Amino acid sequence: MNISALLTSAGINIGFCALFLSLYSILRKQPSNLYVYFGRRLEKENSRYQDPFTLERFVPSAGWIVKAWEVTEDEILSIGGLDAVVFLRIFVFSIRIFSITAVVCVFGVLPVNYFGQEMQHGRISSESLDVFTIANVKGGSKWLWVHCTALYIITCSACSLLYSEYKNISQMKLAHVTGSPPNPSHFTILVRAIPKSTEEYLTDTIRNFFTNYHGSSYLSHQIISRTGKFQKFMSNAKKVYKKFVRIRVTALDNKCRPSLYRCGLCGVVSNSFQFYHSDYNGKRTDLQHSDTRKRKECSAAFVFFKTRYAAVVASKVLQTSNPMQWVTGIAPEPCDVYWPNLWIPFGQLWIRRLATLLATIVFMFLFLIPVTFVQGLTQLDQLQQKFPFLNRIPNKAFVIQFVSGYLPSVILQVFLYSVPPMMMMFSTVEGPISRSGRKRSACCKILYFTIWNVFFVNVLSGSIISQLHIFSRPRDIPVHLAKAVPRQATFFITYVLTLGWASLSSEVLQTFSLSYNWMRKYIFRLKDDPNAVPSFPYHTEVPKVLLFGLIGFTCSILAPLIVPFLLVYFFLGHLVYRNQILNVYSSYYESGGRMWPIVHNTTVFSLLLMQIIALGVFGTKDAPVASGFTIPLLIFTLLFSEYCRHHFNPIFKNFSAQDFIEMDREDEQTGRMKDIHMQLLTAYCQLPPPTTNTEETYYDDSETGDARNQVTI
Amino acid sequence: MNISALLTSAGINIGFCALFLSLYSILRKQPSNLYVYFGRRLEKENSRYQDPFTLERFVPSAGWIVKAWEVTEDEILSIGGLDAVVFLRIFVFSIRIFSITAVVCVFGVLPVNYFGQEMQHGRISSESLDVFTIANVKGGSKWLWVHCTALYIITCSACSLLYSEYKNISQMKLAHVTGSPPNPSHFTILVRAIPKSTEEYLTDTIRNFFTNYHGSSYLSHQIISRTGKFQKFMSNAKKVYKKFVRIRVTALDNKCRPSLYRCGLCGVVSNSFQFYHSDYNGKRTDLQHSDTRKRKECSAAFVFFKTRYAAVVASKVLQTSNPMQWVTGIAPEPCDVYWPNLWIPFGQLWIRRLATLLATIVFMFLFLIPVTFVQGLTQLDQLQQKFPFLNRIPNKAFVIQFVSGYLPSVILQVFLYSVPPMMMMFSTVEGPISRSGRKRSACCKILYFTIWNVFFVNVLSGSIISQLHIFSRPRDIPVHLAKAVPRQATFFITYVLTLGWASLSSEVLQTFSLSYNWMRKYIFRLKDDPNAVPSFPYHTEVPKVLLFGLIGFTCSILAPLIVPFLLVYFFLGHLVYRNQILNVYSSYYESGGRMWPIVHNTTVFSLLLMQIIALGVFGTKDAPVASGFTIPLLIFTLLFSEYCRHHFNPIFKNFSAQDFIEMDREDEQTGRMKDIHMQLLTAYCQLPPPTTNTEETYYDDSETGDARNQVTI
Repeated sequence: MNISALLTSAGINIGFCALFLSLYSILRKQPSNLYVYFGRRLEKENSRYQDPFTLERFVPSAGWIVKAWEVTEDEILSIGGLDAVVFLRIFVFSIRIFSITAVVCVFGVLPVNYFGQEMQHGRISSESLDVFTIANVKGGSKWLWVHCTALYIITCSACSLLYSEYKNISQMKLAHVTGSPPNPSHFTILVRAIPKSTEEYLTDTIRNFFTNYHGSSYLSHQIISRTGKFQKFMSNAKKVYKKFVRIRVTALDNKCRPSLYRCGLCGVVSNSFQFYHSDYNGKRTDLQHSDTRKRKECSAAFVFFKTRYAAVVASKVLQTSNPMQWVTGIAPEPCDVYWPNLWIPFGQLWIRRLATLLATIVFMFLFLIPVTFVQGLTQLDQLQQKFPFLNRIPNKAFVIQFVSGYLPSVILQVFLYSVPPMMMMFSTVEGPISRSGRKRSACCKILYFTIWNVFFVNVLSGSIISQLHIFSRPRDIPVHLAKAVPRQATFFITYVLTLGWASLSSEVLQTFSLSYNWMRKYIFRLKDDPNAVPSFPYHTEVPKVLLFGLIGFTCSILAPLIVPFLLVYFFLGHLVYRNQILNVYSSYYESGGRMWPIVHNTTVFSLLLMQIIALGVFGTKDAPVASGFTIPLLIFTLLFSEYCRHHFNPIFKNFSAQDFIEMDREDEQTGRMKDIHMQLLTAYCQLPPPTTNTEETYYDDSETGDARNQVTI
Repeated sequence: MNISALLTSAGINIGFCALFLSLYSILRKQPSNLYVYFGRRLEKENSRYQDPFTLERFVPSAGWIVKAWEVTEDEILSIGGLDAVVFLRIFVFSIRIFSITAVVCVFGVLPVNYFGQEMQHGRISSESLDVFTIANVKGGSKWLWVHCTALYIITCSACSLLYSEYKNISQMKLAHVTGSPPNPSHFTILVRAIPKSTEEYLTDTIRNFFTNYHGSSYLSHQIISRTGKFQKFMSNAKKVYKKFVRIRVTALDNKCRPSLYRCGLCGVVSNSFQFYHSDYNGKRTDLQHSDTRKRKECSAAFVFFKTRYAAVVASKVLQTSNPMQWVTGIAPEPCDVYWPNLWIPFGQLWIRRLATLLATIVFMFLFLIPVTFVQGLTQLDQLQQKFPFLNRIPNKAFVIQFVSGYLPSVILQVFLYSVPPMMMMFSTVEGPISRSGRKRSACCKILYFTIWNVFFVNVLSGSIISQLHIFSRPRDIPVHLAKAVPRQATFFITYVLTLGWASLSSEVLQTFSLSYNWMRKYIFRLKDDPNAVPSFPYHTEVPKVLLFGLIGFTCSILAPLIVPFLLVYFFLGHLVYRNQILNVYSSYYESGGRMWPIVHNTTVFSLLLMQIIALGVFGTKDAPVASGFTIPLLIFTLLFSEYCRHHFNPIFKNFSAQDFIEMDREDEQTGRMKDIHMQLLTAYCQLPPPTTNTEETYYDDSETGDARNQVTI
């Protein structure tokens, strides 16, 4: 590939992007797509969009870009929660660091690479891309110092930026905890592995234990009943009921709360359950198995405390001398609770974790099979030699073109689409108690998967499985990577250009959602469902962005041409995701910025990988001094990572006593505590609340933004 | 080596052992060696031994064996503490598991190995030892099933024994916590990284913080002052003073306590310090630098609470939103505190830990240099080829005999003696706050060192450094080990025979202590020092015993002849160490059985290593089915280890709220709480108490045993 081909490819991709964005700016103005592009706002602001038919609707405009640009971080925080802010900070960080990298690499490294060999350079546009990579630098060249300096500049600025981001985000997280309205989860712990007694009821066991050992601060508790099929049936019944009767949502809501409130007080949901659902159509026979349900009480419960501090104390201390009984932990937020997993016996969790870890690793390696298959398809001539019957196929030329040009990417994409649901399933089986925890776990799995299957497998391309032995000789990895990464630089540039930019276009267009909406409306003739607003898919988007960061770091020194394209990706991505957070996705639950440690660790890993590859390159280029200078950088990066882990990580895992005690005191002084206690008893409702269908929005954040009735586009 | 040579070697070693033990039984009866062999009892029972000169004193006797045998576990617990019991449990466990192994291997594996090849067996006594190893079994033999079954039996019985030991010891540990007299450390936390303020004194900062956030349970605090040189000078001064004045220890003790009591109340030791030491000879000028000492206050303090539960809560909860400030943890027992490390700023700890880890690894590899040198000496003919000047040495035959026969082991032993002090130094630098923690850390380091340098380096013997590349190819390790371990079986048998048995003889004879005592008495004409009783060197003895366990497990299947010799070692060791705990060593401080998780993990590691080696052996012997059956065993062992980690490990790290609350209640009901609070304020005394010289015995366990004035031998 030469420069002109690259520029052509870039031009085509820019054209496509412009086309898609214009298409988006038109489609978003069509009333029929309103629920696709403005789901969050329609849901939050309870408004309907009435637009007269004008010509303007069919003219592309850039207004949405301006609007997305103008939103402040505080607005994002109030709309999308801390997670959205943290997600956007990845882009801010990436833009900053890759701007520095761009300056260093384009003005420092690129000329050195270009003039690395004593050769006649032709016209720049017809130069091969390899001339711009480190492969063009002579072995033993003195100019490798430039690369080493660039490495130092990039690492140091990345570390200082990472540090300031981590510091900012941890401060934001603290402010979020102390500044937000009283949160029921701060007063609640989840107790698991409660020992079952034949003499007394579970509820008595719990009450006795906590009044005995935490008597001064214990408020109440709520037993979790094992749901499974029963709950499935109930939500199905509810759907059917809604379809036929169309009762007013608010009326049902009002009816539900008092009954649950009473049940919360006495600690049992089950009794109020029948009352609540007795309006539903006559499936009473199933409901009346109250004694069978009693057996389905699982040995877990939410326990409510009078103060936040008491809850945090009870969650931290080992309760009894048997570490597998009365296991406590801070409860997730009510809307974040992943109910189906609460029944899992605590003793099973560690084995589930091990099993899913194993399954994930097996899945990652099994995925090599389609990849190898696809690579086989592109080398069809080799296949023909091995399987002569392929020669007998008629229309050979067309088949070969189709098979080698089109099929491979289709097959890969189909397989890649199966990854997020698969990983989400693994994460569900793992047994997290919160939705955000499940998403975070899936995010990590997809991240490992992506880095392994996109970066490493592509770098070691050719016949991957035959190259796997590299990993059995850890010492040779740097040299192998040093040889392979520059060779694959062109691939990564086109990867950023096509898949990176295209994924943003597809994200903003919401292709899948759009076609689903179109099918619903025009084929199945269904009406819009205002409650089917998706939540932000952090588990797929975070790995994607981090992968581009990894590619950027590892290629920046070796093939600096990639950096400008990456910068465009991050700029565009920043705008697109701001727009999506503003308009499309709803934040039902949030992890409170706990995504950031993952981002931080991945970035540190990318830096380390960059340095290891540089070490290999300096080794193969006979630059022992540059190699020697890279090792302190490696050590420095590792120390930096440890430093951050000690200084910031605990904030994301624990609540501080000081903050909680002061919040408690403030609430007591203002007399709010009574109200909070009353709210607390109804906060955790195991049954899916009647307002939403797929996602629960029980616990609302304070609603923000102007309550316009008209959505302005 | 053949059987008769082995039996000869065993005979010689048995003879030596018998000789040493008889020597011990005579030497222990000599009054001049009383402080060598009965240090603990003389110290505890404050008695003097008066023995008339009789002939009996020079006749060997086995009375001590009977006495050591008759002591019950409860007596050991009261004399040596939980750590001693845990240490002896290693022997009990080893005897049990290796008895099972002996039965399985001698009756199952040994005949299969012996008749593995179709060959004419001569007289057994002249058979080579290799005939008894797995190397004698034909490749593809059906009889390898016996080995696989033995592997299953050994692993399963080891796991079940390990499980029951872990369970027993954790119950013992719990009983020890709840059953022992009120322990000041349960009421105390160590606060580090207290932020310094320019406006108020450190003591006010601490008082304000804890009265503000833990007001209901805060009792008092004691600031730790940085000691270093000052304290060293003081303890030297004290030694000088003691030498010249010979005051009564008890008088001084009585004088010390009230003054310290007062200082504890106001939270400052420094003022009472001058009073306490004003009796000492006139070095007052140095003492009067009270203002310089004020600057040396370090930002750490012991904080006392009114109840145990409050202390455990304060130690577990993150105090402020800055995880690097107000860091809390349960305090060690008063006599267990390692004062010199308390001044270390908390922020330094992680970097110290990393640095010592690195230093330990470097030391482990640097140790290969003497090992290689020694191996070079044994292959002198090769050296001669390389360095021809060696041929010109006169008396060649003698030099060669000396160099190749005697020097290597001397050099190795000298180097090996340097390991425990070196590791202890590393552990000190690491910054543990307790003596037991330091010993535990050193124990782990010595354990890794021993396993690496005795097991792996010997297995991969020859030219070790050239064999190091094995570890860069992890997949080949089982095969390499499978080839190397049976080859080294003879070496390990002689290792057990000589070093194992000899180390026990040397332990019981106390060779070093004996010669030191002799030198003191007859060369320097010093009197006995009743306070110089050593504490039990767990950090050197535990790794030694565990190494023999590791050798036993790994060799049992491959070369079953080793097992009987190991059994003898464990039996003898059990007796010897019982005797030593009873008579020689004092228990000044204890870790509460926290050595056991290390023992457990090492044993699991040994089992895994045994299985991995078996996997390699089955692979090289063409027994794929047996290999296949070994893999589930590996997985089972890993799962077992995880299971135990989840079920028992937290007990060794945390105190349970239930136990502590009940202990608090009991103390409050019996009215003991006031007394405990009073004691608490004087419990932590930073200055070395006047009773001992090298070790602190401030906090006495309830004295046990009969208070005879006469020591019965």
